[in-house]
Amino acid sequence: MATATATPTRLDLYRQIARQLRADSIRSSTAAGSGHPTSSLSAADLAAVLLSGHLRYDWSKPKDPANDHLIFSKGHASPLVYAVFRAAGVIDDKELLTFRKFGSPLQGHPTPILPWVDVATGSLGQGMPIAVGMALAAKRLWDAPFHIWTLVGDSESAEGSIWEGFDLGGHEVLPNVTPILDINRLGQRGPTELEWDTDAYAARIESFGWEAIVIDGHDVAAIDDALARAREASVPTAIVARTIKGKGVSFLEDKPGWHGKALSPDEAKKALAEIGDEPSRTFETPKPEAWRPPQKQKTPKVELKGYTEPVATRKAYGDALAALCAANGSVVSLDAEVSNSTHAEEVKKAAPERFFEMYIAEQKMVSAAVGMQVIGLVPFASTFAAFFTRAYDFIRMAAISRANIRLVGSHAGVSIGEDGPSQMALEDLAMMRAVHGSTVLYPCDGNQTAKLVAAMADQKGIVYMRTTRANTPILYRPDEEFPIGGSRVVRGGAAGDKVTVIGAGITLHEAVKAADALAKENIAVRVIDLYSLKPVDTKTLVASVNETSGRLVVAEDHWPEGGVGEAVLAALAGASVNAVRFVHLAPREMPGSGKPAELMHAAGIDADCIADAVRDVLR
Amino acid sequence: MATATATPTRLDLYRQIARQLRADSIRSSTAAGSGHPTSSLSAADLAAVLLSGHLRYDWSKPKDPANDHLIFSKGHASPLVYAVFRAAGVIDDKELLTFRKFGSPLQGHPTPILPWVDVATGSLGQGMPIAVGMALAAKRLWDAPFHIWTLVGDSESAEGSIWEGFDLGGHEVLPNVTPILDINRLGQRGPTELEWDTDAYAARIESFGWEAIVIDGHDVAAIDDALARAREASVPTAIVARTIKGKGVSFLEDKPGWHGKALSPDEAKKALAEIGDEPSRTFETPKPEAWRPPQKQKTPKVELKGYTEPVATRKAYGDALAALCAANGSVVSLDAEVSNSTHAEEVKKAAPERFFEMYIAEQKMVSAAVGMQVIGLVPFASTFAAFFTRAYDFIRMAAISRANIRLVGSHAGVSIGEDGPSQMALEDLAMMRAVHGSTVLYPCDGNQTAKLVAAMADQKGIVYMRTTRANTPILYRPDEEFPIGGSRVVRGGAAGDKVTVIGAGITLHEAVKAADALAKENIAVRVIDLYSLKPVDTKTLVASVNETSGRLVVAEDHWPEGGVGEAVLAALAGASVNAVRFVHLAPREMPGSGKPAELMHAAGIDADCIADAVRDVLR
Repeated sequence: MATATATPTRLDLYRQIARQLRADSIRSSTAAGSGHPTSSLSAADLAAVLLSGHLRYDWSKPKDPANDHLIFSKGHASPLVYAVFRAAGVIDDKELLTFRKFGSPLQGHPTPILPWVDVATGSLGQGMPIAVGMALAAKRLWDAPFHIWTLVGDSESAEGSIWEGFDLGGHEVLPNVTPILDINRLGQRGPTELEWDTDAYAARIESFGWEAIVIDGHDVAAIDDALARAREASVPTAIVARTIKGKGVSFLEDKPGWHGKALSPDEAKKALAEIGDEPSRTFETPKPEAWRPPQKQKTPKVELKGYTEPVATRKAYGDALAALCAANGSVVSLDAEVSNSTHAEEVKKAAPERFFEMYIAEQKMVSAAVGMQVIGLVPFASTFAAFFTRAYDFIRMAAISRANIRLVGSHAGVSIGEDGPSQMALEDLAMMRAVHGSTVLYPCDGNQTAKLVAAMADQKGIVYMRTTRANTPILYRPDEEFPIGGSRVVRGGAAGDKVTVIGAGITLHEAVKAADALAKENIAVRVIDLYSLKPVDTKTLVASVNETSGRLVVAEDHWPEGGVGEAVLAALAGASVNAVRFVHLAPREMPGSGKPAELMHAAGIDADCIADAVRDVLR
Repeated sequence: MATATATPTRLDLYRQIARQLRADSIRSSTAAGSGHPTSSLSAADLAAVLLSGHLRYDWSKPKDPANDHLIFSKGHASPLVYAVFRAAGVIDDKELLTFRKFGSPLQGHPTPILPWVDVATGSLGQGMPIAVGMALAAKRLWDAPFHIWTLVGDSESAEGSIWEGFDLGGHEVLPNVTPILDINRLGQRGPTELEWDTDAYAARIESFGWEAIVIDGHDVAAIDDALARAREASVPTAIVARTIKGKGVSFLEDKPGWHGKALSPDEAKKALAEIGDEPSRTFETPKPEAWRPPQKQKTPKVELKGYTEPVATRKAYGDALAALCAANGSVVSLDAEVSNSTHAEEVKKAAPERFFEMYIAEQKMVSAAVGMQVIGLVPFASTFAAFFTRAYDFIRMAAISRANIRLVGSHAGVSIGEDGPSQMALEDLAMMRAVHGSTVLYPCDGNQTAKLVAAMADQKGIVYMRTTRANTPILYRPDEEFPIGGSRVVRGGAAGDKVTVIGAGITLHEAVKAADALAKENIAVRVIDLYSLKPVDTKTLVASVNETSGRLVVAEDHWPEGGVGEAVLAALAGASVNAVRFVHLAPREMPGSGKPAELMHAAGIDADCIADAVRDVLR
């Protein structure tokens, strides 16, 4: 185990490993003909000391919960990541040279296709807040002995999300995570904002409640000491390492024009001669002491509330999440300072330690959720649906991370009323449908919401639920089932139906009202509750449109693009089924403030508008 | 004009205005039955001193370029915004009481429907970086005499984007913008992270290169002095004001449970009695000295490059933007530290002072673009297409701001190759289509790109262009025209065409190759270049699908949801036209690294896959 007093032998070992990491970073990127060798060389000494002196990691058991975590927030230093894996002996020389090749798990930026990678990085400013979020749960829930290390680039510290990460670590006093800033002065196209002003970095970090240790990032003794201090610290501690981009190869050192550029074979030969081109070997990493998180209770049955009176689906979400927390000790809740609106606050009563207040920082919230699922938790993160747009890059990256996270957005659409368009999610369904492998749910009543929230806990990937601000009537019994990928026919369903009307969430109730009004005119309408937008119930949609002679009305509280209407069209098109007459009701002008009913009517999505559309398609 | 030595009379006047702002904030929100009176009361003294002592603004000429700017970053303090407008005399008592009512321009959160509002706020953490971005252009391009003030909430300082704003102001040394932080200790659901730790706020602000003036935000003399100092400062200066939420009404002051809650009529009566319920009147605001920005040159003709050899559309973007800058002195370029990849760097040669380096901070970049268009500039902002997801909330809000901004995303889709999925935009078209009033363009060759870039300068709203990493063949002559909303038939077009094949950008070339191969098999294919995805050329699509017996193949380098395929389906569905046989080629599995051709083939979107799909629909 590492100590702060390293022997000369140990320091020599660090230097030897660093040489190998540099050589392998060049070898792999030159073989690939692309990649970021110079960004790897600046951090090679930091990685070498960490790997051999401070990281406690059993490379043969990457899923061992006792292992430390190492997240390369600067994911473009992937040659260094893979060189570390080579030095740890988990990949061989031949695999190393598959870097960036088709089919290789050694992708241009690291992803969890490799078992030693926790999360995908490569969109900058994300690995660091993910690491801090992981540290928060590890400390609060388990006081876990493992440490979390994250290598942060200087360029990426321009991203506000890095400061959201520092804010979280400082506020929650997390000494179990150590950001290591690789201050190599040069970004992609020139100098960084702060260049080598390590004091400025330190002042910023300290202002967010951390201690900053400033070192020469190529002095292995200083690195060794700093890493030891950071691990043992009782306060949040970051390391600010002044480094040289391209360090170790004279014609690369601190030279512009070398970002994201592989050396030619000739240049590589010269570089390797300078570094010392020895055959690569395997080095020891300290192993962690045995540890497991406390056994979490999990009861097979979730005691969901049943509803008979109108209730907001956001309230039903809160109730169901609290019930889930009671049944499953792995479920955690994160909320961006609106838990009294999203009703995530119900968790505070059921399991206060598993409620994580993220304040108004949605990027931080989604990052933390991604970090928490790495260590086996089942996160639900909530805010106003509109504000998940703040975290779209993080959600997209979470899909590349193969993360299992659940996002619940409340207050969607024009139907929220007086608060106006800044608070109205009108693009969330489009955004979430266009996430790889996502699930998109939009329940209309309390009982349906409860069942779907319970199902979300077991659903893989990025799972999104849209909830509604207003109380909505109860359409379903508490004992009904709503499989993901299903739908419900709530009016009509017989041979004589003239028109298919599709709604979801708030518009489903308008569709029902329209159908009931039209029934009095002897117009039989089939109303489908499309509570699962992705996957979508193609079979029911195709059958219904065919059985209603291709007459179709879709009403949604979302811009016309990418939401319910286009989900329906894509389902029908895939089956090459045709809507002979199609009317798409959706807001088309920028809404303002007003009462929900006024705004829904103005947007053309209330019962009157739906009834008119039905009459129209029958004309 | 304001000075730092206020007379007792002046201080009394400030207090009188503050009383009126408080009373009117309560009156309007109580009439509405919703809103944020307590968040308004905390900042009433700040607003009063600003309005009457320091803001230089001709309320009768809101578009006068000499006017100061005042952006309420904490947009939920809209009762205070409208109370300020009442005190300035531009709305009357009756209008004030339309707050939050249907059809009223006094919406729940401020929007530029009102001429005195620059930008919509209400998604927190946005007004402040917008203000800083405006200050950057105002200082660098004109050394303009106007000052920019922005009222910032304490809760919203948890958003990383606030620190991106401070980073920009510090780095660019902008003393012409003053963030005023209203530290009222209470957020929506309880205390803020830092509560009344004004020293912590000051330390953070100073660490980003600003001076911070800490004051009691209810001491009008201190406010007066601080505002005067901030305006005269030669270094970036922020004001940290310790305030009390609900200040002025004893039963509201520093009380939890009052966020976003209107007083009942009875409570309002009590509150108004305490404040002093005088009839509202109009107060003077200092007027600015006459000033206009220097006349910008604008030549009617943009000297666009013509291309005959393969070129990347991103390179053609850079060339065209540089040409635009040469022709029009209002055009500015912002880039997130990747200008050598997006080719925005071409602007540095043509008009170096109009290139704004935003470093790796996409939220800051889009904010700054929004701020710059407020003062009459024509901003183009560029980064990798994938990274615009980082700024989606800002783009969505820019639409509510009725902003005219142009966003150009390079390196889209699996066709970028080795860098892997973190760098591949596969959701950008869905995201951008689902923005109100947006224009979405995706050119395939250099000449088309040049013409579309020129058209973007005159297009209103949020205009997005997706460019491609690789060089692509030239299909069009430099003198051809490509109207927004149009399309091009590039193969076929005669009566005997069997199948419509639609591509855009990179896939258009694959579609052409497929059509040429199929021609040898005597299969006539009509290939449409759908370079304008929104608005989309419905007429051509409908005609072509009808003329090819409903046989349709769409190939796109984007997830299946929300992109080219769904844009086409929506166009056809609107016309109730049917694709009898429809094949949608798009990536459906998470890609890795590899050569562009390998990845396009694996995603099923290359010429071979398109040709197979055509044969399939003819079977």
